[in-house]
Amino acid sequence: MEQRISLITLGVGDLARARRFYEALGWQAGMVVDDEVVFFQLNGLILSLYSRAALARDAGVVDEGSGFAGITLAHNVRSEPEVDAVLSEAERAGGRVVKPASRAEWGGYSGYFADPDGHLWEVAHNAGFPIDAQGNTLLG
Amino acid sequence: MEQRISLITLGVGDLARARRFYEALGWQAGMVVDDEVVFFQLNGLILSLYSRAALARDAGVVDEGSGFAGITLAHNVRSEPEVDAVLSEAERAGGRVVKPASRAEWGGYSGYFADPDGHLWEVAHNAGFPIDAQGNTLLG
Repeated sequence: MEQRISLITLGVGDLARARRFYEALGWQAGMVVDDEVVFFQLNGLILSLYSRAALARDAGVVDEGSGFAGITLAHNVRSEPEVDAVLSEAERAGGRVVKPASRAEWGGYSGYFADPDGHLWEVAHNAGFPIDAQGNTLLG
Repeated sequence: MEQRISLITLGVGDLARARRFYEALGWQAGMVVDDEVVFFQLNGLILSLYSRAALARDAGVVDEGSGFAGITLAHNVRSEPEVDAVLSEAERAGGRVVKPASRAEWGGYSGYFADPDGHLWEVAHNAGFPIDAQGNTLLG
């Protein structure tokens, strides 16, 4: 298995609401299929929004589950003020700041927001992980 | 917020077991910090393995949750036989095939495995989403 990922699919309770949230962050959908799936082209991979019930069905698992999902996404930025700015932007877009930005144990600066379906995004400045001109994040 | 992602963190119950699983898939860790976090460089983003309890603490949420996480990852491959091959490889590495590969509604061919902590990976061949020479997946 090659060391790479192709898609992240976020199961959502209300596709239109989830789409509005990510578009309010300034994202542009690259493809929408039958008003059922919304795809965003990210840096080398795709993020898709899809009905949570349909996603469970597709995976062949029961759509029961609650609480902490045990997985987080992170969006690193190039400065500390940008961390606060993105968290505020997420809040204005309809997200919830779960943890305001603060100094992290590992020396950086980070906070978390939840999207309307509770998917957790960390927003972080980590000087050790450079971001290249294409927006890719690299191990230092 | 730029349209990109930097990291995916998988909360795990046993870091050594999770690391062994991804290494058995042929992945190589790019950085290990204090035997607490294992980082893998993927195509433009980083996948990290971290204690699930510590991840919840970091996000400021309660580490209670079970069942379907409502999020899946996907690894697209270049042919249908490769889908079966990767699912078998995941099973040999200690994963569980949750859904054997089959023809998908959308015309492709896909199946799912769960890693030792239950994180769901779809393995798919999707002729509509080209994979470039760097391993990036693109909206057609």
